[in-house]
Amino acid sequence: MKASIPKGTRDFGPSEMAERNYIFETIRSVYKSYGYQQIETPAIENLSTLLGKYGDEGDKLLFRILNSGDPFSKIQLEDFKKDEAYNAESLSRAICDRGLRYDLTVPFARFVVQHQNEIVFPFKRYQIQTVWRADRPQKGRYREFYQCDADVIGSKSLINEVELVQIIDKVFNLLDINVAIKINNRKILSALAEITDSKDKLIDITVAIDKLEKIGLDAVKTELQNKGLSNEAISTLEPILTLSGSNEEKLKTMYELMNGNNSLNKTSDIGLEGINELKSLFSLISQSNIRNTVEIDLSLARGLNYYTGAIFEVKALDFEIGSICGGGRYDNLTGLYGLEGLSGVGISFGADRIYDVLKGLNKFPKDLHSSTSLLFANIDDEAISYLLPVVSELRNAGVNCEIYPDKNKIKKQFDYAEKKSIPFISIIGSNEISSNIINIKNLNSGIQESFAKEDISSIIHFLLNK
Amino acid sequence: MKASIPKGTRDFGPSEMAERNYIFETIRSVYKSYGYQQIETPAIENLSTLLGKYGDEGDKLLFRILNSGDPFSKIQLEDFKKDEAYNAESLSRAICDRGLRYDLTVPFARFVVQHQNEIVFPFKRYQIQTVWRADRPQKGRYREFYQCDADVIGSKSLINEVELVQIIDKVFNLLDINVAIKINNRKILSALAEITDSKDKLIDITVAIDKLEKIGLDAVKTELQNKGLSNEAISTLEPILTLSGSNEEKLKTMYELMNGNNSLNKTSDIGLEGINELKSLFSLISQSNIRNTVEIDLSLARGLNYYTGAIFEVKALDFEIGSICGGGRYDNLTGLYGLEGLSGVGISFGADRIYDVLKGLNKFPKDLHSSTSLLFANIDDEAISYLLPVVSELRNAGVNCEIYPDKNKIKKQFDYAEKKSIPFISIIGSNEISSNIINIKNLNSGIQESFAKEDISSIIHFLLNK
Repeated sequence: MKASIPKGTRDFGPSEMAERNYIFETIRSVYKSYGYQQIETPAIENLSTLLGKYGDEGDKLLFRILNSGDPFSKIQLEDFKKDEAYNAESLSRAICDRGLRYDLTVPFARFVVQHQNEIVFPFKRYQIQTVWRADRPQKGRYREFYQCDADVIGSKSLINEVELVQIIDKVFNLLDINVAIKINNRKILSALAEITDSKDKLIDITVAIDKLEKIGLDAVKTELQNKGLSNEAISTLEPILTLSGSNEEKLKTMYELMNGNNSLNKTSDIGLEGINELKSLFSLISQSNIRNTVEIDLSLARGLNYYTGAIFEVKALDFEIGSICGGGRYDNLTGLYGLEGLSGVGISFGADRIYDVLKGLNKFPKDLHSSTSLLFANIDDEAISYLLPVVSELRNAGVNCEIYPDKNKIKKQFDYAEKKSIPFISIIGSNEISSNIINIKNLNSGIQESFAKEDISSIIHFLLNK
Repeated sequence: MKASIPKGTRDFGPSEMAERNYIFETIRSVYKSYGYQQIETPAIENLSTLLGKYGDEGDKLLFRILNSGDPFSKIQLEDFKKDEAYNAESLSRAICDRGLRYDLTVPFARFVVQHQNEIVFPFKRYQIQTVWRADRPQKGRYREFYQCDADVIGSKSLINEVELVQIIDKVFNLLDINVAIKINNRKILSALAEITDSKDKLIDITVAIDKLEKIGLDAVKTELQNKGLSNEAISTLEPILTLSGSNEEKLKTMYELMNGNNSLNKTSDIGLEGINELKSLFSLISQSNIRNTVEIDLSLARGLNYYTGAIFEVKALDFEIGSICGGGRYDNLTGLYGLEGLSGVGISFGADRIYDVLKGLNKFPKDLHSSTSLLFANIDDEAISYLLPVVSELRNAGVNCEIYPDKNKIKKQFDYAEKKSIPFISIIGSNEISSNIINIKNLNSGIQESFAKEDISSIIHFLLNK
């Protein structure tokens, strides 16, 4: 039998795990420093919880789990037949009640409703777990991957938004990745549709704005025309399409447009609300020592179907890749499960893309791969008896160390240390035993130091400070 | 729609997560101190990797994943029909190519074979991941749960066994659980069948020995008779059935039995080999400062179908529950995938049962639930502006703190701190701002201390040392 794993899934060996844990631990420590608390939800959810939450396309990408026992004995397969073919959707619903988690947001909404009486609101939770999507695998896209989400639910305060921007800034500072943090507000997008009399064309407008950089102003205008926007509407949008300058300048241009200074002489209340939110947010951001660029970007339209306020997206500046973090505010995520009126805001780090950025820019810390500090070579049983108490005291003091288990050639034992990036080796022979010492050799410099066997504290000090 | 999760699965809220992470982190830190390195394998494996590895019963407990796209369009359902019923097994094989991980051992064997050219042998790996079993859920038995495994593969040295015993001892010392570590050897069990001329009755013999404590000597003898063992065989086994005393005494009794001092006058080479292994192991253990009881227990027969040497099992002494850790040596785990001759030995901690023991004995550390050190109350925007730089410096120094996001009644903000077990609160009003101070109140003692706003290092020192 050939050893293999399904397409789109991955094994992670020790060095990849060390690198991945470095990313997860960085994100986790920053989440915790802001008071976010960890939860975990099951990988397996009821299909009724998942279906219909991610659009038709999402429903198709759900992994479904065959019911246990004999799922076929409980149904008549003929009932699902029409014109010689089986109705795959209703047949699979009949034999599959459960599916795999597709993201962390829907299970979180379900969790909040189910545990609303135990939860302390505002509820700041983080969650770092695997999700599964039956997507076509390609470079950088997997069927099984981690998401790293933080959300606060039950608070409308913009302090949450500014703290999420601080968290993003802090995580990428710690990881040494330069980023641009882009911010939009769904209310402003809605206002654009409103002041151009095109409420039904919200998505067309944002899709067109998104293409500006790629295809240029004239092509975007043509596209808007093709989508049915009037010339008047397009000329109203023009200040937005050519929006530039500092965040303050952008806010001023948008304010004028929303305040009636447009070809339709319309004032948009929701637009002014969105602008006020952005203003307050940037005022708080300016007091927050943020190191990375934070900029208004009206072309951000991610999660348009559920975000209702702020929208975030983060781009790496020195490496070509899609968004590496994103999020936004949603007003009614838990409404689906019967709990209305809870507003929330959250972000999600894309660990796999962040991994690619760190790899591409060679920014993983150098000492990540050496998890063992010292290898004791295995010469004979007498040496092992001599070593056992020393090894035990070193481990108790927090020094990770190993005894090479087999009495192999010393060359092989050195190879083992080298391949595992173990920096120190100790070879105990009859001389060391009779002089009651422990020799420790630095495998990089070749320098060897001797310690009295009883002087464990010096050995510990030596190893922990290297 | 009702918010619910499938039977046998669980949500873990913040306090359960803190308790569970305490267990996982304890196990992980001990594994690492012995040079074990982490790997992760995908949740989804090819069914061909999983099927046939856990017996017929195990095959039935595998969660199978419905193929994506339209799995029914590729098959003729009629082909699977016989006598008006569908053949569930072959039909489900036709529409499911993949399943969920059932344990961590088979995926580890698959991993070793697949990555044999990248792996440094002897390979010491640990793995803490979820597994899934379509078992009937009951108290303490779940369909989705974590396993915490460590295995070393590619070494026959008994140093590995003794280190695993040390790891078990250390983990339960750190968790403050008193345990008995029971050790058996498969070779001795084989020898019992050999010296009683009952090679085909190995399992019957071990099952009977296992019942000794429950049903008594006479009932066990009757059971062995019913299973077809001769009176001679049973009298040969009698010294084993009544085995008692210290480990040395047990070894001596077994040695005599295996060395021909039995009613058949048979000598068992494999039995003597097993006894020698136990002797060496106990000699190493006696040099290892093990704090818990380690005892020979011939009734241990877990994993009899693949263990070939040492067998381990751990029982909690002060709490009634099944085995909380177990493992053993296997000689040919990777043979299934075409890589022969690799011997390995490993253990697995049962995190859910350990959780129940710690809960039942009230042994979780008391400070596990407070993850935030300090809550800044939210009075007005001026106070927030005053606070933002302080909060940011505290977080940079490793103090987890929060700003209450909304301007709610102060009573509600105090409630929030109390429910989240936050020990300190700071309320900044116009007085504090005009005197340029930060007040910090201990919510348990009610004592309040004042710090100059600029004297961040004193605030940090105060909070980190409380």
